[in-house]
Amino acid sequence: MTTGLELKSLITADGILRLSLEPSELPDPAADEVIVRIEAAPLNPTDHYQMTGPADLSTLRQDGNSDSPVLLATVPQAAMPFVARRVGQPRPIGTEGAGTVVAAGREADHLMGQRVALRPGGMFAQYRLAKAADCVPLPEGASSADGAAIFVNPLTVLGFVETMKTEGHTGLVHAAAASNLGQMLLKVCLADNIPLVNIVRKPSQVELLRGLGATHVVNSADPDFEADLVRAIAETGATMGFDPTGGGRLAGQMLAAMEAALTPPDAEHMVYGTDVPKRVYIYGGLEGGPTVLDRRFGFAWDIGGWLLFNFMKRTDAATRASLQQRVLDELTTTFASSYTRVVSLRQVLDPDIFRAFQARATGEKFLVDPTLD
Amino acid sequence: MTTGLELKSLITADGILRLSLEPSELPDPAADEVIVRIEAAPLNPTDHYQMTGPADLSTLRQDGNSDSPVLLATVPQAAMPFVARRVGQPRPIGTEGAGTVVAAGREADHLMGQRVALRPGGMFAQYRLAKAADCVPLPEGASSADGAAIFVNPLTVLGFVETMKTEGHTGLVHAAAASNLGQMLLKVCLADNIPLVNIVRKPSQVELLRGLGATHVVNSADPDFEADLVRAIAETGATMGFDPTGGGRLAGQMLAAMEAALTPPDAEHMVYGTDVPKRVYIYGGLEGGPTVLDRRFGFAWDIGGWLLFNFMKRTDAATRASLQQRVLDELTTTFASSYTRVVSLRQVLDPDIFRAFQARATGEKFLVDPTLD
Repeated sequence: MTTGLELKSLITADGILRLSLEPSELPDPAADEVIVRIEAAPLNPTDHYQMTGPADLSTLRQDGNSDSPVLLATVPQAAMPFVARRVGQPRPIGTEGAGTVVAAGREADHLMGQRVALRPGGMFAQYRLAKAADCVPLPEGASSADGAAIFVNPLTVLGFVETMKTEGHTGLVHAAAASNLGQMLLKVCLADNIPLVNIVRKPSQVELLRGLGATHVVNSADPDFEADLVRAIAETGATMGFDPTGGGRLAGQMLAAMEAALTPPDAEHMVYGTDVPKRVYIYGGLEGGPTVLDRRFGFAWDIGGWLLFNFMKRTDAATRASLQQRVLDELTTTFASSYTRVVSLRQVLDPDIFRAFQARATGEKFLVDPTLD
Repeated sequence: MTTGLELKSLITADGILRLSLEPSELPDPAADEVIVRIEAAPLNPTDHYQMTGPADLSTLRQDGNSDSPVLLATVPQAAMPFVARRVGQPRPIGTEGAGTVVAAGREADHLMGQRVALRPGGMFAQYRLAKAADCVPLPEGASSADGAAIFVNPLTVLGFVETMKTEGHTGLVHAAAASNLGQMLLKVCLADNIPLVNIVRKPSQVELLRGLGATHVVNSADPDFEADLVRAIAETGATMGFDPTGGGRLAGQMLAAMEAALTPPDAEHMVYGTDVPKRVYIYGGLEGGPTVLDRRFGFAWDIGGWLLFNFMKRTDAATRASLQQRVLDELTTTFASSYTRVVSLRQVLDPDIFRAFQARATGEKFLVDPTLD
């Protein structure tokens, strides 16, 4: 029997969110199972969202003690019906991570002592029971930190490129491009000769991406942003965009800039616009509020949601495997994640650190290391 | 030499829109050409838009005289760059229509005296030169009014159904469903057993569509509209919508209702929504202003532009021919257009009639008959 701490998120019937560390006892692994000592797990926005649910984080307060920290927050009454099924049920948190196999069933013997990456959920824990088939052995010399995030961001980036090819586009526009994911996309596009327009919000981010080799970086805070975007898109021929901001006018601005770039300057006024397909995918919701489309882009346009899980579901097994293999092959180069902060499980529940994550700036990235507890 | 009047739209270099009737002289038809005496041409919103361009219609004023009427309006200075190429060039107007062949080249002899439908543009005229190959002979007994609108609305409606099938959906939602086009879609869906949710804006329109056999009609002016829409969509399984309004929240409400209908009432809160593809096409801009999406529909959604011309371009010739044949086969039943007003070319330029069209209500439809001039 292996015992360890596990981060749990609970919503009570009286509308309180409770985040705590709970001791968990893991059974001996079945024949096809292993127990992994978690050594590294990224704290992604999606993990934060699953941790907090619809709780009002302005009501965040500390409980428990430094050894057994607890965070509480109030869930607005109006949001309770949407979480009815999880009320009273403590939930494990943590999408992906890596660690060392410390126990193995008899069919999983070969994994014993091996460093592996996995994503069974509940990675914010000291130990995790998993199917051997769900563990991806890391290459020789790779640390758990190197392998902690081989799924979500790398496969998302490769999924963007696959989607581009499948739908017949030849260049991309990416917003919030200075993010960890954005830098990864830049590296992939440079390696694969895919023209990429990077949209950022600060001069320092322009510098950062240029330093990484980016040719086209436009700053949405510049007064000439829309004209700059048209020029960059015209130079790249990009007709597909990916936007993690979601709310506001950015997705529509991408489409309008694509249409403007496709319209010859001496073109007759075209009532219905060009017939060249233009497409933007929204893959996050960094900006709250509605998506606003001014529809200055004719009729040959599409905008939609993009989710890694849905992409994987409609992709054949061979393609999925080749994407995952590429991530392993380029683990410490193209797909290297740089973390700005490594925290223990207890520190995740430190209100200052919790709020720092919540207010995270582009490029900041937290890694949870449960061996520090 | 055949001579006749033709409606022309001219934007002058000093920013004046001028609509007038001009005499035109038609040459004798070449071997593969015919001259058609136009007897019926629908006045579609698209024709109105091409007539007026970006002119400010609050400045509409009369000129000329009752025999040779002229309408003038001011084009805002800011809009002039967009129409640079049409400045100084009088444009013919009128997308589609029907009439009788009154002259034919030697290879088009068989069409002489035949009633035909055609869409070479410039149908707001007494006579029109056309390629014989572009003329569709009307069935025995069909009048020119019957055949005046066999292209735009019928092919749009059949294009919706084709698009639905191609993209793997099995039911439709349609907004502004009491329109001429909406009634046509209802008839096609009833004939083909396609579940259809009709969205209208008035109780009288609910009655109208129920009278035509509609099962699901919801009124967007009702306080329970959103709940009614979810219920109707749940009953039909519709996951594709067509929206001619464009501006405002309606397209997003369709997607949200589809997602709600797909989500079991006892479902756990799903962070990323269902993975069932939901799609809305915007095919017009009856409502000005931006499209606003509240994104309460997960990540498996798409919204885009739909244009008959683009649909036809990506559809194979056999399918196009079979759609056109169906329109002819059901010309006076499924695809019958009812016109609320028949006007002469001169009457199109009567300010009162012009404004009445501009302010047109759902279900109103104008037919131009140049033989009245």
